[in-house]
Amino acid sequence: MNLILFDDRDRLDTRHVRLSDPERLRHLRDVQRAEPGDELSVGLLGGRWGRGRLLSLDAAGAVFEIHLDRDPPAPLPVHLLLALPRPRMLARTLEHVTALGVKRLTLLHTRRVEKSYWQSPELRPEKIRHHLLLGLEQARDTQLPHLDFEPRFKPFIEDRLPGQLAGRRALIAHPGMAETCPRGLAEPVTLAVGPEGGFIPYEVERLQALGFTGVHLGERILRVETAVTALLARLF
Amino acid sequence: MNLILFDDRDRLDTRHVRLSDPERLRHLRDVQRAEPGDELSVGLLGGRWGRGRLLSLDAAGAVFEIHLDRDPPAPLPVHLLLALPRPRMLARTLEHVTALGVKRLTLLHTRRVEKSYWQSPELRPEKIRHHLLLGLEQARDTQLPHLDFEPRFKPFIEDRLPGQLAGRRALIAHPGMAETCPRGLAEPVTLAVGPEGGFIPYEVERLQALGFTGVHLGERILRVETAVTALLARLF
Repeated sequence: MNLILFDDRDRLDTRHVRLSDPERLRHLRDVQRAEPGDELSVGLLGGRWGRGRLLSLDAAGAVFEIHLDRDPPAPLPVHLLLALPRPRMLARTLEHVTALGVKRLTLLHTRRVEKSYWQSPELRPEKIRHHLLLGLEQARDTQLPHLDFEPRFKPFIEDRLPGQLAGRRALIAHPGMAETCPRGLAEPVTLAVGPEGGFIPYEVERLQALGFTGVHLGERILRVETAVTALLARLF
Repeated sequence: MNLILFDDRDRLDTRHVRLSDPERLRHLRDVQRAEPGDELSVGLLGGRWGRGRLLSLDAAGAVFEIHLDRDPPAPLPVHLLLALPRPRMLARTLEHVTALGVKRLTLLHTRRVEKSYWQSPELRPEKIRHHLLLGLEQARDTQLPHLDFEPRFKPFIEDRLPGQLAGRRALIAHPGMAETCPRGLAEPVTLAVGPEGGFIPYEVERLQALGFTGVHLGERILRVETAVTALLARLF
């Protein structure tokens, strides 16, 4: 935990916060071995971050005196369209992409996504939020990503996606495409990444018809979580 | 499993192999639902890969008729010096970097590596090999990485590392360094990546004295497994 995030409900006054979440208190005590007087990195969800001096730590909570003078790191200018990964990989992928600075993520159904994945407990809001917060705390960020679910491919790409593409470069990452993935872009990008097993040809064609350009990362087939990190690191 | 790897002991003759490892047989039967007559991607460890036609599948083994006509994907020209990650992250990192094409990996002790990590069962040769094979099978590669262990920092960087740097660009990835990580290199690179918590200043200085240039990936602090994937994707 490189940053302790709190939200407005944790504020005691303009200069003091109290954390009372048992899991964070345990981490603070047993992993970070924090003691009153210690200075730690703290941040306000949706706001700035900086230093917090621990004033007291007991079973009821940890009180910090805070001084927030730093802006969160810049977001990546990307809208990630990701075929819903299997649950265990979803959890890790949410942490990776949040740490990397993705602020807009759409989890999408495609033919090769198992339908059972949409019933996974990993999709519960509190589970999703937990992984997003871990990603933020890892990267010292305070801005939660915005997350959409699109459990039906066709209505999404026909009714909603076209209106979301204005002014953006649209890329579909897929093995066997003609172009290699570009490097060091500064413009806004919408990036579509398929499931294990890839998009089916029909899905690639539909996205290409909307203006998506197919790109690849070489002949190696990567796991979704590795591929997404590699794509984002290369694109920006 | 995008590739079924076998080794020379599995060969029946020049055109036939029998897999008998119970775990792979179970995967073939229960996950891939393979049946005699199916064509699957198969490869020879250290050799070529191609197609295999499943002739029979029973409790004793799976016999394939093989036709290996493809070379494995190109390796990355990198020697990765990685501070030993904690065991759970080591397992995943071995799979990521093997899938990405790393062929030379040194796991290194640094001050912020917990000494107990060196006693982890994850360091047993059969465990390491298991993760390397998973990485190869993911990426359809057949060339195992070469792995060294350096449980003492000073003797390694004084006695062995200098002789390994000839003709290579040497980079140390560390938050706060002056230069951003370069992109799209074609030359051989030795890349040093620290543990959670980073290298200590003394370690950075010793590596810089050997000619390593400090580079960073931005202000976000990434987990080791995310950082390594991002660095490799950006460098090559």
